[in-house]
Formats: sequence, structure tokens, C-alpha cells
Amino acid sequence: MTTGESDPMSVLGRRDEVTCRVRDVLDRVGSKWTVTVIHELGSGSRRFTEIKNAVPGISQRMLTETLRGLERDGLVERTVHPVVPPRVDYELTSLGRTLLESVRTVLDWALEHVDDIDVARKAYDGRT
Amino acid sequence: MTTGESDPMSVLGRRDEVTCRVRDVLDRVGSKWTVTVIHELGSGSRRFTEIKNAVPGISQRMLTETLRGLERDGLVERTVHPVVPPRVDYELTSLGRTLLESVRTVLDWALEHVDDIDVARKAYDGRT
Repeated sequence: MTTGESDPMSVLGRRDEVTCRVRDVLDRVGSKWTVTVIHELGSGSRRFTEIKNAVPGISQRMLTETLRGLERDGLVERTVHPVVPPRVDYELTSLGRTLLESVRTVLDWALEHVDDIDVARKAYDGRT
Repeated sequence: MTTGESDPMSVLGRRDEVTCRVRDVLDRVGSKWTVTVIHELGSGSRRFTEIKNAVPGISQRMLTETLRGLERDGLVERTVHPVVPPRVDYELTSLGRTLLESVRTVLDWALEHVDDIDVARKAYDGRT
């Protein structure tokens, strides 16, 4: 096992402030709603209702919370246009765009192995 | 926007059974505890207490749940050795090893951008 600083994973085993922050970021990045919203915004600027329609199953409240979290993290920019009724657009920041690339590998993994996981679960549930 | 089947991300916008399963897998893969436990087991077989010590901040109950979920998904294998007291080892399956590689890109992203996110949060909290 590599435990030196050269191994980025080694940070996870340390109980310090950076570890907590990285874990917190990991939890956000890994959320299924974050991944889906980031993906949708990867195609360009969207209004709230457009995102809601593009993400089947997400509640109004969960989408509001997801977008607020992404805005707070500097991953999404929210623009209010001074029209009546006000128009609010959401788009990825440059930081958000770098995340779009990163989550893709994990999504590819999930898509590739979802059937393997199903088989494993059925076998597990049959044993217990 | 690419909406064809050739874009793996496009599956996220569909309200069908596969989408739900992939989202479910994504949520598991993205969990900070999953990432940390998978990382620790990446170094080899471990006993429960060894994992607990290597993952600062995880509770007994959360570790039990995390390991049970990983076992059910076929990512971790649990072996009970018939000794007194019983010895229980956990190790990654071959499927679990493929996940180890995939989460690394996301972890690298988190490590690289944790400071950018902090700056963004402070700016956001200062505005609201």
C-alpha cells in the first residue's frame, strides 16, 4: 500500500480538516441528482422547469436543493433576468464543466456493471 | 446535445427501470464511505476492526451497513473463518476492483478542486 502524499487516495485515511472537506465534496459529486443535473446542464443553459422535465423523478424541493448546493459550490451559475415574470437560468461554471468530465467514468462504470450488481443482489437475497 | 444511445449519459434522462437502477448504483458508488472502504480494501483483505481504524469518523453501525451493501452488490466478499472467536475478513471481488479504478478520477477531481469549492462557498455565504 502506498501511504505517501503521492497517492491521492491516502488522504482519505487521515482524520484532518482536508479529509473531511474532500469527503464532503465526494458525497456531493456522487449524488445521483447532482450527476443528472450536471449532465443536463452540460448541454447548455437551462431554466428550472426545463431541468425538472429532463430529470424524471426529481421533486421540486430536491431540485431546488440540488441547484442551491451546486451554486454554493461554484459549479453552477444562477442568472435572474429582469423580466416579468422573472426568468431564472442555470448554467455550468468552468469548474462545473471539469466535474462533467470526471463523473463520466463513474457513470460508464455504473452502466457497464449494473447487470452484474443485479445478479449479485439476487444471489445475496437468496442466501439471506 | 447528444441524445442517442451512443451517449452513455443519455440514459439518465429516461424514466425507465434501467435508469432507476443506474441511479441507485451511482448513489452507492458516490458515497464517501463506500469510496473510503473500497480504497482501504484495495490494499488487501481486512478485518472489520482494521477497516474501522483505517476510516476515521465512521461509526460501527455505518461501517456494518456499508460493508453489507457492498457485499450485497457483489463488490466485497465476506469470509468467516471457523476459529474461536470467529474471524471475519472482507476483501474486494474482481467487480469491486474495477470500481476502485473508476472512483479514482472522481477523487482526483475532489482533491484538485476542494479549495476552489471552499472559495466559492465563502463567497456564496457572504452574499446570502
